[in-house]
Amino acid sequence: MDRVPEQTINRLPIYLRCLVQAASLNMPVINSLGLAQMAGTNAAQVRKDLSYLGELGTRGIGYDVEALIAHISGELGLTASRRVAIVGFGRLGGSLLGYSGFSERGFDIVAVFDADPAKIGTSVGGVRVRSIDELESGLAEEAIEIVLLTTPADVAQAVADRVVAAGVCAILNFAPVTLDVPDGVKVRPVDLSVELQVLSFHLARMTQEA
Amino acid sequence: MDRVPEQTINRLPIYLRCLVQAASLNMPVINSLGLAQMAGTNAAQVRKDLSYLGELGTRGIGYDVEALIAHISGELGLTASRRVAIVGFGRLGGSLLGYSGFSERGFDIVAVFDADPAKIGTSVGGVRVRSIDELESGLAEEAIEIVLLTTPADVAQAVADRVVAAGVCAILNFAPVTLDVPDGVKVRPVDLSVELQVLSFHLARMTQEA
Repeated sequence: MDRVPEQTINRLPIYLRCLVQAASLNMPVINSLGLAQMAGTNAAQVRKDLSYLGELGTRGIGYDVEALIAHISGELGLTASRRVAIVGFGRLGGSLLGYSGFSERGFDIVAVFDADPAKIGTSVGGVRVRSIDELESGLAEEAIEIVLLTTPADVAQAVADRVVAAGVCAILNFAPVTLDVPDGVKVRPVDLSVELQVLSFHLARMTQEA
Repeated sequence: MDRVPEQTINRLPIYLRCLVQAASLNMPVINSLGLAQMAGTNAAQVRKDLSYLGELGTRGIGYDVEALIAHISGELGLTASRRVAIVGFGRLGGSLLGYSGFSERGFDIVAVFDADPAKIGTSVGGVRVRSIDELESGLAEEAIEIVLLTTPADVAQAVADRVVAAGVCAILNFAPVTLDVPDGVKVRPVDLSVELQVLSFHLARMTQEA
């Protein structure tokens, strides 16, 4: 399998979401233009992205919707469910545990860790809150593959080091710090303030231009 | 002012965060390598990105930390606070309202809208939940510049159309659909399942390579 560009990888889940929507509308086939319009990109981009996955689609006809769903799901490793832990169980952690979109897409939150004695031992949505002291043993016991890191910023790096040392290779980082991790570990940052600041940039430009 | 590339805009908030951290450590000056290491990129990228903002920094010395904070804040339009509304007040909306990181960075959530009669009229954190029927008048009354769209997926486009028609030009979209908006309106999608699927892709590749 050739190296797939990062930007293409980032678009595959979007295509998948659009294809599932198309399937729910009973569309048997979709062409690159149709998929591009649903995904908010252009047809050439769709064809280029999908070309990394192999010889898909039929010229002049398009892509078989169900076949393409199966193919992209396979590429994304979504054929089996993934075991996920939340580390840091504040307001955001609680919101993530309650978000049904994860389990619907095969991401099962099966462990929660926190440092607050008042929370440890309680159960939320069928998941028991464990002590952060049991982080390494708990991650191993539950065979966790992905950690949602929702600790305060000042301890995020130290906790990430422990998560990585415990063998977890994928972190979704909600703490507003840039994590330093070894090669082979994948971190995706989610910083909502950054998103708002990018919007603010555009608002500032619009005002200048007006 | 020249056109600043989208990827550069996306990195400016990261640089700003790192600079604020440097200032809190009493660093008067930072060079491109130091800033790059904090931001998780490389020095050439930092120099290139900042060159779009003008002639900043002194060769062989670096950037004045406080001056660069002021400059980037100005570029991002962060010198005044921005008025923000949450549309769709479910679990995620509630979590966003409680997130202190927004107001700390000048994003004030001053209005909340929902369709659920049980929620309308209640107050949360000093903000009254308004009926979605009052969306247009409420957005205008509160001079909202940015909407956090946290409705269910099936109504997101219809609600976004109303938000745009009311004159709002910036939307942070948490609904798992690609929004269709006119030119001049900026949408930033936040789809946490997409983030998890990207991590899953990397996990799948690691397993194949192992």
